[in-house]
Formats: sequence, structure tokens, C-alpha cells
Amino acid sequence: MVLTGRLEDALHRILDPRLASLELMGADLAPIANATRAFVLNGGKRLRPQFAYWGWRSVVAHGAPGEDAMLELAASLELVHACALVHDDLMDGSDSRRGAPSVHVRFETDHRVSNWPGDARGYGAASAILVGDLLLSWADAAFAAGVARLDPAPGAAAQAVVDLMHQELMAGQFLDVMEQARGGFSPDAAARVIEFKTSKYTVERPLQIGAAAAGGDPEHLAALSAYALPLGQAFQLRDDVLGVFGDPAVTGKPAGDDLREGKRTLLVALAMERATTEQRAVLTAGIGRADLDESDMATVRDAITATGALDAVEEAIAKQLQTALDALDASGSMLRDDAADALALLARASVIRSA
Amino acid sequence: MVLTGRLEDALHRILDPRLASLELMGADLAPIANATRAFVLNGGKRLRPQFAYWGWRSVVAHGAPGEDAMLELAASLELVHACALVHDDLMDGSDSRRGAPSVHVRFETDHRVSNWPGDARGYGAASAILVGDLLLSWADAAFAAGVARLDPAPGAAAQAVVDLMHQELMAGQFLDVMEQARGGFSPDAAARVIEFKTSKYTVERPLQIGAAAAGGDPEHLAALSAYALPLGQAFQLRDDVLGVFGDPAVTGKPAGDDLREGKRTLLVALAMERATTEQRAVLTAGIGRADLDESDMATVRDAITATGALDAVEEAIAKQLQTALDALDASGSMLRDDAADALALLARASVIRSA
Repeated sequence: MVLTGRLEDALHRILDPRLASLELMGADLAPIANATRAFVLNGGKRLRPQFAYWGWRSVVAHGAPGEDAMLELAASLELVHACALVHDDLMDGSDSRRGAPSVHVRFETDHRVSNWPGDARGYGAASAILVGDLLLSWADAAFAAGVARLDPAPGAAAQAVVDLMHQELMAGQFLDVMEQARGGFSPDAAARVIEFKTSKYTVERPLQIGAAAAGGDPEHLAALSAYALPLGQAFQLRDDVLGVFGDPAVTGKPAGDDLREGKRTLLVALAMERATTEQRAVLTAGIGRADLDESDMATVRDAITATGALDAVEEAIAKQLQTALDALDASGSMLRDDAADALALLARASVIRSA
Repeated sequence: MVLTGRLEDALHRILDPRLASLELMGADLAPIANATRAFVLNGGKRLRPQFAYWGWRSVVAHGAPGEDAMLELAASLELVHACALVHDDLMDGSDSRRGAPSVHVRFETDHRVSNWPGDARGYGAASAILVGDLLLSWADAAFAAGVARLDPAPGAAAQAVVDLMHQELMAGQFLDVMEQARGGFSPDAAARVIEFKTSKYTVERPLQIGAAAAGGDPEHLAALSAYALPLGQAFQLRDDVLGVFGDPAVTGKPAGDDLREGKRTLLVALAMERATTEQRAVLTAGIGRADLDESDMATVRDAITATGALDAVEEAIAKQLQTALDALDASGSMLRDDAADALALLARASVIRSA
């Protein structure tokens, strides 16, 4: 079976018994169970589990002892990510995710449809907080169960990396929230948010979790970082471009969502930095306006393109991707060949996305 | 050193290096680190860690191998609880906790004081979500580290109980949120919320985590349940009484906070059930009104007392406490004597609280 299918099976092995046990606790818990199931199983690229698996395979061959435990460690990262997305959508006020209503909106709608008294938004928010907390608990429980099936030393090493990953994720989220609250457009701050939320959280730490679980040494983990950090930058920049110029059918989010939300991306920061007085007026007036319509959006997009920021970001993506691929070459025999090949393919496939 | 001091030391061993590592990630993370530190270290009765420790001691003697690891497992439960409180205050819109502003209010105030543009409440909410997520991550990491220091079989048994505890906590929280949203006053539903959020989460599971970590068998765990479940009921009923009749200097919350929030407790449910038409009108008009003043509150309190609900709840507390103490006696030699004595004291001290 291909890797993505094996990871999906591992995800079911984690999720299905827990959902069943939750539903046994009471029929009135069905809304939480259903929302959790639907959210986790409604797509997603499973990037973090794939990186974790290839990190493992960069140390040991296919079918090495512990591979089943490793698949569960890898799949558990998807539940951490689901928590992050559910809480993120609530914090950002994003109404949809992967083409479906976000979790807080789903519960808010339940409240309205049921004609309950009181505050539908509060109910939506509380439910989304709890769904996220449940996902994070389940992720940690599944990770601990996987670690218990490994030898103690590599198990502890993998646990140490995942602990750091959690902390970096929360740190990155907070810096992002604070930067938006401050209303600044600082390319430096945007770069730090990317480092925590994408380079480390999406690529470096998952790879290192896999490698540590397979007994990889610190030099091996460093070789993975040399690939991961530039690739993470490229990922985030591609996301930023898609958030402004992307096709909703591909992104699963409304067109230009990042513009409406006023998200402080490197793309926007660069556009502000390079803008003429006139262009800056267009950007300032449009970005962060919740009622931006399709024609306003086109005007803002044109202004961003005209500053040269889009070209600069596309160039940066290509350059970071090349740096990541060069790092795979430079690692020589340290990373096993089949893993290095897979990592090269994964990098290209994820970064060279059509809008 | 007395137990509470040893638990506080264990909490510092978990928290201090993590706070230091967070602050090393960037000076601008200080607000998150400071809020987390202040919240966890600002009091709290450390009930769950104490129960976990005495659960352990109900199986093995003082100073048995693994006691240090056990203290860290126990202390980690306080971080789970801190997460639950931070998220709970946000969901309930509670402005204060233990006499200090709640976490979301603290960040909201930072936002206003800093004169940042945008939405101060949104910033407060997002920061509180992230502080809670960080606390939960740290709790799970510390628990995993403790388990790694135990033998595999008892370690796995303790991990299984804590996983269940998390799930029950979230289930209880959701039932609570949903019950309030529905606007119902059902004593049955209130009793189920108590079962999950207090009996199991506060008493039964912590005790069983300790006992499982010490190698206690299922019969031993069941003996602890027989003490824990009625005691948990008594705890929650005492909290409900304090939430309406308690002295803010003792509870650390504004007087009658539960009335203003419209919290559906068993006390309120019983009062509604027993109320005359006139009394019901007073209760319905007063409960859940955010602007309830001291004199309105006195009227509602008098109505609750007049229905006989307060006496009924006090009687129920005394009865449940006695059932818990009887269970300790009935356990015979299964629970070690010194642990049984400590559990009896802990039960009395926690339930017989002056308003």
C-alpha cells in the first residue's frame, strides 16, 4: 500500500476506538464526535505525517522493526495539526476550512437551527475550544502509545522533539496573534512567525521525530534541518501567495481570504515596503476589510503585483526550494537514498502548486 | 517536607525549564510566559496531585522506588487543570480567578493599555486559547517523562488512565456547555456533568493514576472508585453552594458569580424544581442576569433557601461524604492504612468548608 494509505489507516487506528469510546459515554456527545471525525477525515495533505515517516526512513530501511509504531507516531501529528487548525480558525474568525464550515461555525449553526436561547457564537466558540483540546489530548495519548512501543532511548528522543514542536507551535501562534494585534507590517516579525509555524512545525520537527525514533544521531538531525528550514520557508511563501491569488476550488478557502482577514504575510509586508504612496493607499484601504468584494480584491491584487512583491516572493520560493534540494545532495550518504529521493519529490510537489 | 511542598517543588521542576526555554525563543514571548507562570503559581488547592500521590501510597509505602517520578506525574495534573480553568474562564466569560484577572482579561487589558489597533477582546481570547494549549502540551510532556521513568507495565497503566481522564474532562465540559446553551434545568443532566467534571476528573482518575503507576490491580482501582465517586459529588455540591453563598475572600471569585453566569448547578436545578410559582418568578428573573447587584442577589439567595434546596444540598453533601468514608473502611486492608487515613482527612477538609 502507498504511504498515504498506510498513514490514513494508522489515523483510523488512533481515531476510531477513541471516537467509539466517546460516543459510549453518552448519546449527547455525538455532536463532538461527529465534528471531530468530519474535520480530521475531510482531506488535508498529511504533510507532517509524511515528513515524519521519511525522517524515519532516512535512517532505516523499509520494514525495519518498529515501523508500525512509527506510522502511529506520524499519524498522531495530524491530530495536533487538526487542533491547531480548529483553534486557529476560531482565533482568526475564519468561516470555512477545506471547503466546509469551520468547527466553531458548525456548532454556531447547530445552536441557531435548534432555536436554543442564549448566545450561539459563544456556543460555537466553546465547542471549538473543546474539540481542539480533545484533539490535542488524543494526539499526545497516541504519541505516548507509539513511544511505548519503541526502545527507551529512541522513544525518549522522539518525545523530546515532539515536546519542543508543541512549544514552538504555540510560540509561533502567539507571535502571529500579537503581530496582528499590534497592526505592524514588519518583514522581520513575519519571518519569525514563518520559522516557528511552518519551517519548524511543518517540516523540521516532524522529520526529526521520525529520525530520532529510528535512532538517528544529532548530526543526522542537523542534516534534515538543512533541508527542512528553507523548504518550510518556501511552503509558507506559497501559502501566502495562494491566500491572496489562489483559486478557492484548490485552496478550499474563499478567494483572497488572507486579504479580508488582514493577515500580515511576507508578501503583504514586502508589498507595503515597496509600494509607492498611491499603491500604499490602495493596500491600506483594502487589506483587513471584511467586506472586500471581488472587484476591490482585484484592485488590491493588482497593486501587490505592481509593487513587484509577487515576483520577489516567487523568486524567493524558487531559491528556497533549490537550497533545500542542494542540502539533500550535500548530505551525501547520511540520508538513505530512497528517503532523499522521496523528500526531493515531496518538496517539489508541495511548493510548485498551481494557483 | 510535607506533601504539598514536595508537589510544589515537582511543579517547579516541570515548569521552570519550560518557561526558561520559552523565553529563550524570543523576548516578545514574555507575556505568554509571565501569564502562564502567574496563573499556575497563584494558589490552587493542588487537589488532583494530592489524590494522585495518595493513590500511589495506597499501594506502596513512603519512599518506594519511583516516588520522584510519581510526584512529577502528580504535579503534571495541575497543568491539565490550569488549561481547563483558562479555557473555562474564557468560555464562561469569567473575569477573575483566584482573586486575579482571568487570563483572557489579562491579555485584553494589555491590548488596551498598549493602545493597539483592532480587537482587544479577540486578542484576549486568542491568547487564552494559546496559553491553555501550551499548558496542556506541557502537562502531557511532563506526564510522558514521568511514565518513562516507571516500569513499562505500570507506566502504560497510568498512561491509559490519564488518557481516559482527558477524554472525560472534555466530555464533561461539552455536556456543561451544551446544557447551558439549551437553557434547560435538568437535575439529571447536572448530575452527569458532575460525574465527569468532578467525580471522575478531580478524584477518581487522579487516585487511579497513582495506584496504577504503583502497580495496583483492577480490584484496587475499584476500591478507590468507591471512595472517589461520592466524594466528587460532595465536592461539586460544596462548590455549587459556594458559587451562590460563598465569601469572595475565600472563593477568590466575585460573590454570587454562578448566579450572574446563570450556571445550571444541582442547587439551582433543585430550587427550580421545588419553587412555588412566586419563587420561580424570582429565580427566573434573577439567574443569568449579568448586571445582578448585591440586593438582587440577596433576593435570589433567599428564594433558593426558602425552597429548601440549600438544606437538601447540605444534606446530600453530608451523605456523600459519609458514603466515601464508609468506602475507605469497607476496603479493609486493600488500601494501606496511612493512605486511607490521609484520604479521610483530605475528604473532610475539602468538603467541610466554611462559606
